[in-house]
Amino acid sequence: MTVSILDEVGGRRPDVNQQNCPSRLVLEHVTSRWGVLVLGALLARSYRFSELRRTVGGVSEKMLAQTLQTLERDGFVHRDAKPVIPPRVDYSLTPLGREAAERVWELARWSEQWLDTVESAREAYDTRRGQSG
Amino acid sequence: MTVSILDEVGGRRPDVNQQNCPSRLVLEHVTSRWGVLVLGALLARSYRFSELRRTVGGVSEKMLAQTLQTLERDGFVHRDAKPVIPPRVDYSLTPLGREAAERVWELARWSEQWLDTVESAREAYDTRRGQSG
Repeated sequence: MTVSILDEVGGRRPDVNQQNCPSRLVLEHVTSRWGVLVLGALLARSYRFSELRRTVGGVSEKMLAQTLQTLERDGFVHRDAKPVIPPRVDYSLTPLGREAAERVWELARWSEQWLDTVESAREAYDTRRGQSG
Repeated sequence: MTVSILDEVGGRRPDVNQQNCPSRLVLEHVTSRWGVLVLGALLARSYRFSELRRTVGGVSEKMLAQTLQTLERDGFVHRDAKPVIPPRVDYSLTPLGREAAERVWELARWSEQWLDTVESAREAYDTRRGQSG
Protein backbone atom coordinates (compact mmCIF):
# COMPACT_ATOMS: atom_id res chain seq x y z
CA MET A 1 0.00 0.00 0.00
CA THR A 2 1.58 3.28 -1.06
CA VAL A 3 1.49 6.47 0.96
CA SER A 4 -0.55 8.26 -1.71
CA ILE A 5 -3.41 5.77 -1.39
CA LEU A 6 -3.34 5.93 2.38
CA ASP A 7 -3.58 9.71 2.15
CA GLU A 8 -6.66 9.47 -0.04
CA VAL A 9 -8.56 7.66 2.67
CA GLY A 10 -7.39 10.01 5.38
CA GLY A 11 -4.33 8.10 6.55
CA ARG A 12 -6.30 4.92 7.23
CA ARG A 13 -6.34 1.59 5.45
CA PRO A 14 -8.95 1.21 2.70
CA ASP A 15 -12.36 0.55 4.27
CA VAL A 16 -15.47 0.00 2.16
CA ASN A 17 -17.59 1.20 5.07
CA GLN A 18 -16.13 4.69 4.70
CA GLN A 19 -18.23 6.84 2.40
CA ASN A 20 -15.35 8.21 0.35
CA CYS A 21 -13.06 5.19 0.31
CA PRO A 22 -12.03 4.48 -3.31
CA SER A 23 -12.21 0.74 -2.62
CA ARG A 24 -15.99 1.14 -2.95
CA LEU A 25 -15.55 1.85 -6.64
CA VAL A 26 -13.50 -1.32 -7.15
CA LEU A 27 -16.21 -3.32 -5.40
CA GLU A 28 -18.93 -1.65 -7.45
CA HIS A 29 -17.20 -2.46 -10.73
CA VAL A 30 -16.82 -6.16 -9.99
CA THR A 31 -20.33 -6.47 -8.53
CA SER A 32 -22.11 -4.40 -11.21
CA ARG A 33 -24.94 -6.16 -13.01
CA TRP A 34 -22.92 -6.75 -16.18
CA GLY A 35 -19.51 -6.79 -14.52
CA VAL A 36 -20.38 -9.99 -12.65
CA LEU A 37 -21.60 -11.75 -15.78
CA VAL A 38 -18.74 -10.61 -18.00
CA LEU A 39 -16.13 -11.68 -15.44
CA GLY A 40 -17.93 -14.99 -15.01
CA ALA A 41 -18.02 -15.68 -18.74
CA LEU A 42 -14.32 -14.90 -19.14
CA LEU A 43 -13.47 -17.46 -16.43
CA ALA A 44 -14.14 -20.16 -19.01
CA ARG A 45 -12.13 -18.74 -21.91
CA SER A 46 -11.36 -15.62 -23.92
CA TYR A 47 -14.19 -14.14 -25.99
CA ARG A 48 -14.70 -11.84 -28.90
CA PHE A 49 -17.11 -8.96 -28.32
CA SER A 50 -19.96 -10.49 -30.32
CA GLU A 51 -19.55 -13.89 -28.64
CA LEU A 52 -19.63 -12.25 -25.23
CA ARG A 53 -22.76 -10.37 -26.16
CA ARG A 54 -24.50 -13.62 -27.08
CA THR A 55 -23.34 -15.31 -23.87
CA VAL A 56 -24.41 -12.59 -21.43
CA GLY A 57 -28.17 -12.54 -22.04
CA GLY A 58 -29.78 -9.13 -22.39
CA VAL A 59 -26.69 -6.95 -22.39
CA SER A 60 -26.79 -4.09 -24.91
CA GLU A 61 -23.84 -3.31 -27.15
CA LYS A 62 -23.32 -0.03 -25.32
CA MET A 63 -23.43 -1.54 -21.81
CA LEU A 64 -21.10 -4.38 -22.79
CA ALA A 65 -18.59 -1.92 -24.28
CA GLN A 66 -18.75 0.26 -21.15
CA THR A 67 -18.41 -2.74 -18.84
CA LEU A 68 -15.41 -4.11 -20.75
CA GLN A 69 -13.74 -0.71 -20.78
CA THR A 70 -14.22 -0.26 -17.03
CA LEU A 71 -12.87 -3.74 -16.31
CA GLU A 72 -9.94 -3.19 -18.68
CA ARG A 73 -9.10 0.14 -17.04
CA ASP A 74 -9.18 -1.47 -13.59
CA GLY A 75 -6.73 -4.10 -14.81
CA PHE A 76 -9.16 -7.03 -14.68
CA VAL A 77 -9.63 -7.60 -18.40
CA HIS A 78 -7.01 -7.74 -21.14
CA ARG A 79 -8.03 -6.46 -24.58
CA ASP A 80 -6.05 -8.02 -27.37
CA ALA A 81 -6.55 -6.36 -30.77
CA LYS A 82 -4.97 -8.75 -33.27
CA PRO A 83 -3.42 -7.15 -36.39
CA VAL A 84 -5.31 -9.35 -38.83
CA ILE A 85 -7.84 -8.78 -41.62
CA PRO A 86 -10.68 -8.69 -40.73
CA PRO A 87 -9.77 -7.08 -37.37
CA ARG A 88 -10.15 -9.37 -34.39
CA VAL A 89 -10.34 -8.34 -30.72
CA ASP A 90 -10.20 -10.88 -27.93
CA TYR A 91 -11.04 -10.21 -24.30
CA SER A 92 -9.55 -12.29 -21.50
CA LEU A 93 -8.96 -12.08 -17.75
CA THR A 94 -5.73 -10.81 -16.25
CA PRO A 95 -4.44 -12.75 -13.21
CA LEU A 96 -6.04 -10.12 -10.93
CA GLY A 97 -9.25 -10.27 -12.94
CA ARG A 98 -9.33 -14.01 -12.51
CA GLU A 99 -9.22 -13.57 -8.73
CA ALA A 100 -12.17 -11.18 -8.87
CA ALA A 101 -14.02 -13.40 -11.33
CA GLU A 102 -13.68 -16.52 -9.20
CA ARG A 103 -15.19 -14.68 -6.25
CA VAL A 104 -18.10 -13.09 -8.06
CA TRP A 105 -18.87 -16.22 -10.03
CA GLU A 106 -19.01 -18.23 -6.83
CA LEU A 107 -21.66 -15.75 -5.70
CA ALA A 108 -23.55 -16.06 -8.98
CA ARG A 109 -23.59 -19.86 -8.70
CA TRP A 110 -24.70 -19.54 -5.09
CA SER A 111 -27.61 -17.31 -6.21
CA GLU A 112 -28.70 -19.92 -8.74
CA GLN A 113 -28.40 -22.69 -6.16
CA TRP A 114 -30.55 -20.98 -3.53
CA LEU A 115 -33.11 -19.35 -5.81
CA ASP A 116 -35.78 -21.81 -4.74
CA THR A 117 -35.24 -21.08 -1.03
CA VAL A 118 -35.22 -17.33 -1.61
CA GLU A 119 -38.47 -17.48 -3.57
CA SER A 120 -40.09 -19.46 -0.75
CA ALA A 121 -38.88 -16.87 1.76
CA ARG A 122 -40.42 -14.09 -0.33
CA GLU A 123 -43.77 -15.87 -0.48
CA ALA A 124 -43.74 -16.39 3.30
CA TYR A 125 -42.82 -12.73 3.84
CA ASP A 126 -45.60 -11.50 1.54
CA THR A 127 -48.13 -13.77 3.29
CA ARG A 128 -47.09 -12.41 6.70
CA ARG A 129 -47.33 -8.83 5.48
CA GLY A 130 -50.71 -9.54 3.87
CA GLN A 131 -52.05 -10.91 7.16
CA SER A 132 -50.79 -8.04 9.29
CA GLY A 133 -51.61 -5.30 6.76
CA MET B 1 -35.38 -27.57 -7.00
CA THR B 2 -39.15 -27.63 -7.33
CA VAL B 3 -41.00 -28.01 -10.60
CA SER B 4 -42.51 -24.54 -10.26
CA ILE B 5 -39.10 -22.85 -10.25
CA LEU B 6 -37.86 -24.93 -13.15
CA ASP B 7 -40.96 -23.93 -15.11
CA GLU B 8 -40.25 -20.28 -14.47
CA VAL B 9 -36.93 -20.51 -16.26
CA GLY B 10 -38.39 -22.46 -19.13
CA GLY B 11 -37.70 -25.97 -17.86
CA ARG B 12 -33.98 -25.32 -17.39
CA ARG B 13 -31.92 -24.93 -14.27
CA PRO B 14 -31.45 -21.36 -12.99
CA ASP B 15 -28.80 -19.61 -15.09
CA VAL B 16 -27.75 -16.02 -14.39
CA ASN B 17 -26.70 -15.68 -18.02
CA GLN B 18 -30.33 -15.99 -19.12
CA GLN B 19 -31.98 -12.59 -19.39
CA ASN B 20 -35.17 -13.54 -17.53
CA CYS B 21 -33.75 -15.96 -14.96
CA PRO B 22 -34.98 -14.92 -11.50
CA SER B 23 -31.60 -15.88 -10.01
CA ARG B 24 -30.35 -12.56 -11.42
CA LEU B 25 -32.51 -10.74 -8.91
CA VAL B 26 -31.05 -12.74 -6.01
CA LEU B 27 -27.56 -11.90 -7.22
CA GLU B 28 -28.48 -8.24 -7.64
CA HIS B 29 -29.82 -7.98 -4.10
CA VAL B 30 -26.71 -9.41 -2.46
CA THR B 31 -24.35 -7.42 -4.70
CA SER B 32 -26.23 -4.11 -4.51
CA ARG B 33 -24.21 -1.15 -3.26
CA TRP B 34 -25.82 -1.15 0.17
CA GLY B 35 -26.70 -4.84 0.25
CA VAL B 36 -23.02 -5.79 0.29
CA LEU B 37 -22.22 -3.41 3.14
CA VAL B 38 -25.27 -4.29 5.25
CA LEU B 39 -24.59 -8.02 4.91
CA GLY B 40 -20.94 -7.43 5.75
CA ALA B 41 -21.75 -5.43 8.87
CA LEU B 42 -24.17 -8.07 10.11
CA LEU B 43 -21.46 -10.73 9.83
CA ALA B 44 -19.93 -9.30 12.99
CA ARG B 45 -23.08 -9.08 15.13
CA SER B 46 -26.72 -7.98 15.19
CA TYR B 47 -27.41 -4.28 14.85
CA ARG B 48 -30.16 -1.80 15.56
CA PHE B 49 -31.18 0.40 12.63
CA SER B 50 -29.42 3.52 13.90
CA GLU B 51 -26.22 1.59 14.67
CA LEU B 52 -26.23 0.10 11.20
CA ARG B 53 -26.69 3.53 9.67
CA ARG B 54 -23.62 4.81 11.51
CA THR B 55 -21.58 1.76 10.48
CA VAL B 56 -22.39 1.82 6.76
CA GLY B 57 -20.99 5.22 5.78
CA GLY B 58 -23.16 7.38 3.56
CA VAL B 59 -26.32 5.29 3.51
CA SER B 60 -29.53 7.32 3.77
CA GLU B 61 -32.32 6.31 6.12
CA LYS B 62 -34.53 5.50 3.13
CA MET B 63 -31.94 3.36 1.32
CA LEU B 64 -31.05 1.47 4.49
CA ALA B 65 -34.72 0.73 5.18
CA GLN B 66 -35.25 -0.45 1.60
CA THR B 67 -32.11 -2.58 1.65
CA LEU B 68 -33.05 -4.23 4.95
CA GLN B 69 -36.57 -4.91 3.74
CA THR B 70 -35.32 -6.50 0.50
CA LEU B 71 -32.83 -8.66 2.40
CA GLU B 72 -35.47 -9.63 4.94
CA ARG B 73 -37.94 -10.58 2.21
CA ASP B 74 -35.29 -12.71 0.49
CA GLY B 75 -34.73 -14.54 3.78
CA PHE B 76 -31.20 -13.20 4.38
CA VAL B 77 -31.93 -10.89 7.29
CA HIS B 78 -34.00 -11.51 10.40
CA ARG B 79 -35.87 -8.55 11.86
CA ASP B 80 -36.54 -8.92 15.56
CA ALA B 81 -38.95 -6.34 17.01
CA LYS B 82 -38.62 -6.69 20.78
CA PRO B 83 -41.79 -5.91 22.80
CA VAL B 84 -40.06 -3.47 25.12
CA ILE B 85 -40.43 0.20 25.96
CA PRO B 86 -38.91 2.05 24.17
CA PRO B 87 -39.36 -0.22 21.11
CA ARG B 88 -36.24 -1.99 19.99
CA VAL B 89 -35.64 -3.65 16.62
CA ASP B 90 -32.59 -5.81 16.01
CA TYR B 91 -31.39 -6.99 12.61
CA SER B 92 -29.32 -10.14 12.23
CA LEU B 93 -28.34 -12.64 9.54
CA THR B 94 -30.26 -15.84 8.92
CA PRO B 95 -28.12 -18.95 8.22
CA LEU B 96 -28.68 -18.40 4.48
CA GLY B 97 -27.90 -14.70 4.85
CA ARG B 98 -24.64 -15.60 6.56
CA GLU B 99 -23.63 -17.69 3.55
CA ALA B 100 -24.31 -14.76 1.24
CA ALA B 101 -22.60 -12.32 3.59
CA GLU B 102 -19.42 -14.38 3.85
CA ARG B 103 -19.11 -14.44 0.07
CA VAL B 104 -19.79 -10.76 -0.54
CA TRP B 105 -17.63 -9.66 2.36
CA GLU B 106 -14.75 -11.69 1.02
CA LEU B 107 -15.15 -9.69 -2.17
CA ALA B 108 -15.29 -6.40 -0.26
CA ARG B 109 -12.08 -7.24 1.60
CA TRP B 110 -10.49 -8.27 -1.67
CA SER B 111 -11.41 -4.87 -3.16
CA GLU B 112 -9.76 -3.09 -0.24
CA GLN B 113 -6.68 -5.29 -0.52
CA TRP B 114 -6.12 -4.69 -4.23
CA LEU B 115 -7.14 -1.04 -4.39
CA ASP B 116 -3.55 0.07 -4.86
CA THR B 117 -3.00 -2.28 -7.80
CA VAL B 118 -6.28 -1.25 -9.43
CA GLU B 119 -5.42 2.44 -9.12
CA SER B 120 -2.03 1.82 -10.74
CA ALA B 121 -3.75 -0.06 -13.57
CA ARG B 122 -6.09 2.90 -14.12
CA GLU B 123 -3.20 5.33 -14.30
CA ALA B 124 -1.39 3.13 -16.80
CA TYR B 125 -4.56 2.81 -18.88
CA ASP B 126 -5.18 6.56 -18.91
CA THR B 127 -1.55 7.19 -19.89
CA ARG B 128 -1.83 4.74 -22.81
CA ARG B 129 -5.07 6.32 -23.97
CA GLY B 130 -3.60 9.79 -23.65
CA GLN B 131 -0.65 8.80 -25.85
CA SER B 132 -2.75 7.18 -28.54
CA GLY B 133 -5.54 9.77 -28.50
